[in-house]
Amino acid sequence: MNLNEFIRDIPDFPEQGIVFKDITPLMGNPVALQAVQEGLLDLLQGLKIDKVVGMESRGFFLGPALAMHLNAGFVPLRKPGKLPHTTLKQAYGLEYGKDVLEMHTDAIEKGERVLIHDDVLATGGTAEAACKLVEQAGGVVVQCNFLIELDFLKGRERISAYSVQSLLHY
Amino acid sequence: MNLNEFIRDIPDFPEQGIVFKDITPLMGNPVALQAVQEGLLDLLQGLKIDKVVGMESRGFFLGPALAMHLNAGFVPLRKPGKLPHTTLKQAYGLEYGKDVLEMHTDAIEKGERVLIHDDVLATGGTAEAACKLVEQAGGVVVQCNFLIELDFLKGRERISAYSVQSLLHY
Repeated sequence: MNLNEFIRDIPDFPEQGIVFKDITPLMGNPVALQAVQEGLLDLLQGLKIDKVVGMESRGFFLGPALAMHLNAGFVPLRKPGKLPHTTLKQAYGLEYGKDVLEMHTDAIEKGERVLIHDDVLATGGTAEAACKLVEQAGGVVVQCNFLIELDFLKGRERISAYSVQSLLHY
Repeated sequence: MNLNEFIRDIPDFPEQGIVFKDITPLMGNPVALQAVQEGLLDLLQGLKIDKVVGMESRGFFLGPALAMHLNAGFVPLRKPGKLPHTTLKQAYGLEYGKDVLEMHTDAIEKGERVLIHDDVLATGGTAEAACKLVEQAGGVVVQCNFLIELDFLKGRERISAYSVQSLLHY
């Protein structure tokens, strides 16, 4: 199955000059959805994971399903003010704009083995912020795992201290 | 397993007078997460589903996992401007404020059997908007399925034309 057929290019979204990778056709197809989940799990090659961390909002699509298959818990990272309890905060620059990522202070326990998951690795700003949040809480980042990696943006270099695995490359 | 122990009450969030049901402790616990998924699937009692529709953002937590178990596709409903392709739009009033929900025009085909899923049924405004979007696209709402129902807000009355099932009631 060629999963690339289910990724739709949207020119100039969300800003002029950006070609957005729309994964909704993939999410909408039952067979592609199963194949993506299996592919992402294969990237882990049996690594033991305690928590899967997913980034708002598209990291929520597959993060919890991965967690369930790994017998792990799921931890959402969110934009400022969205998480209701006390949070750790991390500022970051991303492909288009600047932002802050938050994680609940009690989301990860010291020494827990963490998988970071998001739909797309672009410049790596969000992923780097996620890794820092996990480490602030005392967790260990075992792998950063993406559905899509935009190779030309070299986000992998920004998080080169970690194991980075992506299912599809552009 | 008492799933209520994993739901945390946050007073005055996101606004004064609202008691927010925080499901992150539940998402973070592997055993509770599995139990919730199984509980939500049990509510469906074997109904055939083509698409699971989940609402931004917490409807994304369990919607795709449910879709995978049902051999269905997943369709995200999002706040304005977040979906990159052409959309159907539906305005609605919710417990705190007013908003618009969007769905990709090609997300659901005529006659497809749809499960609406969200984390919380409050006043039913969001769920009603979701049902209307599905019907605009020609889909059939088979069930509205929630992790939590706030019975005192009577959201169920607002979507009484549909089958409404919730795992936990407050």
